[in-house]
Amino acid sequence: MNKENFSFVGKSLDRVDAEIKAEGRALYGDDLDFPGMLYAAAVRSPRPRIRIKSIDDSAARKVEGYAGLVSYKDVRGINKWPVVLNDYPFLPQDEARFHGETVALVAASSRRAAKKAASLVKINFEELPFIEDPLKALEKDSVKIYGKDNVISSFIIKKGDAEKAFKDCDIVIEKEFRTNYQVHAYLETQTATAVPESGGEMTVYSSTQCPFYVLDAVAAACGLPNNKVKIIQSVTGGGFGGKEDVPALVAAHAALCALKFKRPVRLAYDRKEDFMSMSKRHPSWSRVKYGADKNGRIKACKVKYVLDAGAYSTLSPIVLWRGTVHAAGPYNIENIEIETYAAATNKVPCGAYRGFGQPQICFAQESLIDDLAEKLAMDPIDLRMKNMLKTGDRTATGQKIDDSCGLKELAEIVRKKSGWDKSKVQTNGDKRRALGFSCVYYGVGLGAKGRYLDRAGAFVNIYRDGSVQVNVGNTEMGQGALTVLSQIAAETLNAPMKNIKLSEVDTSKVPDSGPTVASRTTLMSGNAIIEACLPLRENIFSCAASMLKAGKNQIKAFGGFFYFGKRKVSFEEAVKECWAQRLKMSEQGWYVAPKTTFDIKDGQGDAYVIYSYSADIADVEVDIKTGEKTVHKIYAAYDVGRLINPKLAYAQAHGGILQGMGWAIMENLVIKDGIMRNPNFTDYVLPISTDVPEYDISFVEKLYKHGPYKAKGMGEVPLIGVAAAIRNAVKKACGVSLTEAPMLAEKTLKAVKEKK
Amino acid sequence: MNKENFSFVGKSLDRVDAEIKAEGRALYGDDLDFPGMLYAAAVRSPRPRIRIKSIDDSAARKVEGYAGLVSYKDVRGINKWPVVLNDYPFLPQDEARFHGETVALVAASSRRAAKKAASLVKINFEELPFIEDPLKALEKDSVKIYGKDNVISSFIIKKGDAEKAFKDCDIVIEKEFRTNYQVHAYLETQTATAVPESGGEMTVYSSTQCPFYVLDAVAAACGLPNNKVKIIQSVTGGGFGGKEDVPALVAAHAALCALKFKRPVRLAYDRKEDFMSMSKRHPSWSRVKYGADKNGRIKACKVKYVLDAGAYSTLSPIVLWRGTVHAAGPYNIENIEIETYAAATNKVPCGAYRGFGQPQICFAQESLIDDLAEKLAMDPIDLRMKNMLKTGDRTATGQKIDDSCGLKELAEIVRKKSGWDKSKVQTNGDKRRALGFSCVYYGVGLGAKGRYLDRAGAFVNIYRDGSVQVNVGNTEMGQGALTVLSQIAAETLNAPMKNIKLSEVDTSKVPDSGPTVASRTTLMSGNAIIEACLPLRENIFSCAASMLKAGKNQIKAFGGFFYFGKRKVSFEEAVKECWAQRLKMSEQGWYVAPKTTFDIKDGQGDAYVIYSYSADIADVEVDIKTGEKTVHKIYAAYDVGRLINPKLAYAQAHGGILQGMGWAIMENLVIKDGIMRNPNFTDYVLPISTDVPEYDISFVEKLYKHGPYKAKGMGEVPLIGVAAAIRNAVKKACGVSLTEAPMLAEKTLKAVKEKK
Repeated sequence: MNKENFSFVGKSLDRVDAEIKAEGRALYGDDLDFPGMLYAAAVRSPRPRIRIKSIDDSAARKVEGYAGLVSYKDVRGINKWPVVLNDYPFLPQDEARFHGETVALVAASSRRAAKKAASLVKINFEELPFIEDPLKALEKDSVKIYGKDNVISSFIIKKGDAEKAFKDCDIVIEKEFRTNYQVHAYLETQTATAVPESGGEMTVYSSTQCPFYVLDAVAAACGLPNNKVKIIQSVTGGGFGGKEDVPALVAAHAALCALKFKRPVRLAYDRKEDFMSMSKRHPSWSRVKYGADKNGRIKACKVKYVLDAGAYSTLSPIVLWRGTVHAAGPYNIENIEIETYAAATNKVPCGAYRGFGQPQICFAQESLIDDLAEKLAMDPIDLRMKNMLKTGDRTATGQKIDDSCGLKELAEIVRKKSGWDKSKVQTNGDKRRALGFSCVYYGVGLGAKGRYLDRAGAFVNIYRDGSVQVNVGNTEMGQGALTVLSQIAAETLNAPMKNIKLSEVDTSKVPDSGPTVASRTTLMSGNAIIEACLPLRENIFSCAASMLKAGKNQIKAFGGFFYFGKRKVSFEEAVKECWAQRLKMSEQGWYVAPKTTFDIKDGQGDAYVIYSYSADIADVEVDIKTGEKTVHKIYAAYDVGRLINPKLAYAQAHGGILQGMGWAIMENLVIKDGIMRNPNFTDYVLPISTDVPEYDISFVEKLYKHGPYKAKGMGEVPLIGVAAAIRNAVKKACGVSLTEAPMLAEKTLKAVKEKK
Repeated sequence: MNKENFSFVGKSLDRVDAEIKAEGRALYGDDLDFPGMLYAAAVRSPRPRIRIKSIDDSAARKVEGYAGLVSYKDVRGINKWPVVLNDYPFLPQDEARFHGETVALVAASSRRAAKKAASLVKINFEELPFIEDPLKALEKDSVKIYGKDNVISSFIIKKGDAEKAFKDCDIVIEKEFRTNYQVHAYLETQTATAVPESGGEMTVYSSTQCPFYVLDAVAAACGLPNNKVKIIQSVTGGGFGGKEDVPALVAAHAALCALKFKRPVRLAYDRKEDFMSMSKRHPSWSRVKYGADKNGRIKACKVKYVLDAGAYSTLSPIVLWRGTVHAAGPYNIENIEIETYAAATNKVPCGAYRGFGQPQICFAQESLIDDLAEKLAMDPIDLRMKNMLKTGDRTATGQKIDDSCGLKELAEIVRKKSGWDKSKVQTNGDKRRALGFSCVYYGVGLGAKGRYLDRAGAFVNIYRDGSVQVNVGNTEMGQGALTVLSQIAAETLNAPMKNIKLSEVDTSKVPDSGPTVASRTTLMSGNAIIEACLPLRENIFSCAASMLKAGKNQIKAFGGFFYFGKRKVSFEEAVKECWAQRLKMSEQGWYVAPKTTFDIKDGQGDAYVIYSYSADIADVEVDIKTGEKTVHKIYAAYDVGRLINPKLAYAQAHGGILQGMGWAIMENLVIKDGIMRNPNFTDYVLPISTDVPEYDISFVEKLYKHGPYKAKGMGEVPLIGVAAAIRNAVKKACGVSLTEAPMLAEKTLKAVKEKK
């Protein structure tokens, strides 16, 4: 397929959902209305760790419109939320393990009444000793809150002999790094509405990235078979990983209320409780060590990486795994030793956040590489170029890099565009301005740890009038999936874009397609759509050819028309003929990702089906009198395979960069004595419009043979390297080697002062 | 497939929807509730034919809660309801053509307000001359209300040379027959609720047999592409043909209101307006002529058959066609001449009713065959046996009868069971009791006139827990489709019945599967389910075999388990393994009926894919002093191929017989001067529980090679022959040859008196 011949793929088409969203017609979770609906509110643990003795709702019963209390006793199925290790009860029976954990729910006829009632429910409890620090959690004599050692999950990668190799290195560098939480700050808080159906089925409208996770949880909580649970994704106002696992818990809570009260029940979080109880990017601690010869050839890498998982495991094992696989960075290194832990603490459980365990360790290792260059007195890009993964090289897990690898080109592009080679530290009064670099490789999709989930379905139905309905199992959450997937469907069928209708997910229309995470939607759902479209395309193209009195290979298809000589027929005409011939115009597609492997003993294997790449250069100014930073510009280049929609790819880049920047220098969630201190947007500071840097975005399209129209994946990669690029620019600007994110002004100031 | 080996097919399993319906949990159209819903009411033509000058709702505007008026001006698409000839406007602009026709709609915040408002809307009109009698409509000098000759549709069948053959016959008999309307009398009147969606889509909940007809109509009226219209069949309380075409009009009216008022709109008919304006069984007139040699070999048949179509064509052309094809009866006759007409009148449009144009002409021809036997002094069964269709014979359209033909056996069974050969007229005071016979062949499915629609889809989705969702495009309307189709899915997958969930139709889940009519559901949707299940079955059976460490052909599958030697695995275990292997567990099936043909010039061709058969003997007692009849017992035997669920087949027989009996002797709709006089269940008398005869039902399963598990179709055939069997019993009992249905007591009494 020649790019020039595409009608829809590769075009910067407008978002198909732009109008409905811009005009305010889109119905988000809390906009939906159902007759007789009740509102639920959570009763939350007031302390980091408690033994629950009893729950008393006698005061709540006096609230007008109060429907009742839902506790663990009302769980009809299994009181284990099904996420990886299944240790999180839907509602705790004996012990609540973090401040803000939902202990029970109340429902009432209005939101206000429900909140009031929840505030009046009294939890009688005994306080238990709790753990706040993940490193302390791993100490021998710590209080044990999870298993026998507070270790939720642990991985190793062992390739070559790092210890031995370090001994032969000319230069060895080792540092510790820390990163803090990041809050997803999606526009729409967690929201679910459960509607009990007359036949005993449960329908849940959920603001979610992962409707099938929601299905699993609702079925488990309600004790229903899967075919009696239907999840409909309401229009979703942002995800970033925050709508990956946790919406399932919220939905299950709503469903338990609906089951008990036999009425539709809405559970919509306010911002504070969303902060307090919903997943976050894991805080991390790491110790990274690189060794190189004097020419800058990196010989060995050793990493110890600890994630603060919080009170329950949720997605931590998988987040940790992604971090583990990528911990040594995008370099061809022969001797690698990586050891990683997810440690339990009595704090909010952390989970998925764009980058999924990679940004934290990337910050550490890409910072340390820069410091290594300094020690070697080499240009940091030159050092990286010398060691960078290229076609044929092997990753830390021993996976051979496919020919779809544009990393070096990306580095060259940003180097050139930013004027790196001629750039110097610019001084302007108290201000110091410089460039910093980082680069990233990113395994697209779920990889070996999620391989059983790495499949996706699509339903394509062509109506008699030539309008087309497409359903997939992956979600639109603002990233543009509906548009990109519509383009793929239109291209494959040669249908006009306006004929394609792709909607939010309905789990009763497509099989379990796994989660919408890991930049896998274009790849997986795109391929599933193509699978579904191909037999339909065959029928349509055959009919078109016979209508044109031409051979099937003689006709040209473009932009919704079929041509032969001077004759043409439209897509709609061809479809009409297919229907007249009673040809099949409806298919379920199914795509299974290529095999991946991971040997738990040494972490070796083909961890991911393919990698995307990025290179970032940050142009940062630091005020050395205040420590404040201004990110003037980010030069970024990406290899994400074919761009299905360049405009949307740029948008993904912009959002990812800004989110990475917020995490790097501004966002600072404070938990002290097990209590979250700033669960709001006044005290938790996010980048706003005035903080937005200038963007210079480039793409190199290294095609991926198994990708839909040879695309890879785009969603997460733009965020990952930003923090390290900023950190390295700060180092260049004012000579301080920061090891902690967020790089708050006051801390930078302190470092600058200490250096002097 | 050996019957004895089936786990689910052929078993008298309980209805899967029995509980929900018995417990009152099933939500019928008028039970559904939507926030902000308005109620619509129709403004109807007060006269049989009017020119509309203007519509004035100024009085209606004073009704509290009044939302507004919807007239032809509010049709956003094409003002032609798409049904065969598309002559029926959704809302008339200039002329209304029958008393009770919807001229406009009003909507208001309550049902009562809507009805009140509708009653206050004034139609300013001029009355036009109208036609009531279909035979007069066909006269040269009649008022022309449809085309140039008031003929909506006309067919001929010409085989051999009937005129010539009559001349060589020893006996020729010719009579005229008439039949009257029949009202469907479904429990649930016409109901639709249209819900405008935020993206401009329209969802309609409809009590319907034919969701795709509804889709076509709503799309046409609203000017929406098909993929923006979704029809969900609400649980449907009876159809019998009355929910075939007309729900589309009701739904389109609701949708036009919803479009205008941007709110959900319910349109639910009360019984009176349902009587007045919804389709009915066509009244008919026919002249039938048979000629035979003295040995009883029938040489020729001539039929003229006229249906009173009413004001618009709707389904009349197709109803007429089925009547045409079957008009000569189930006999091997070499010379046939059939000429049929659907005539336009200014009365309620008639359409589909169980039997679809066949019962009327069957009444005539099976009556006349009996009279022919009398003239020949032959036993009526002997005469029929001599001429009856058998394998290898050809029908009136020249179609060769397949080996799946049990007609003779059926006749023998009822003859034997009823003691026919020894039976005599029994006299008891004024009462005379005797047996009467009739037999029927019935083309299953849509046949050649509906061949473009003769395809069906099915969606089968197997969840990870082994629960199964099945969606089809044909409907449950009380006949048991959900159960029969669940049995077919369970059998094909070897899944436990309880794992199968089959719901009412959602047009966004399956492709246009044609209507649920013509006893085609088991055949078409059953085959589509099998098509969808086969590749899934392949995966499941393979996994089961490998789990059992056996070859795929070595394992035994029964009742939801797989066996090899002493080992077994369950369906759920095998499915779990399929999912672990990421095998496809979701398919869209598509079944296309074999080709049928009909030459419009002479009516020759393979009219239907296969035929079902029935034989009836009615045991009837007539009170010769009152003319009243008591149907004591009906002996009926059917060949409908494999019985998927015998209990449901018996239920179909019971219902069909009773409905046939009601039409034969009780139900009498009166239209006088163009106005319906008894649109209610007080004055239109239906059989009630005390009228139910004893049933003696038998089946002969002549397998149909293309049927799902070799089934044919069952829904309509039990009704068709009942009237003639009763009529022939009455003749035997008291010697009067009735030619009109319903055979009301007063008319029978008159005939008895005249005979004396």
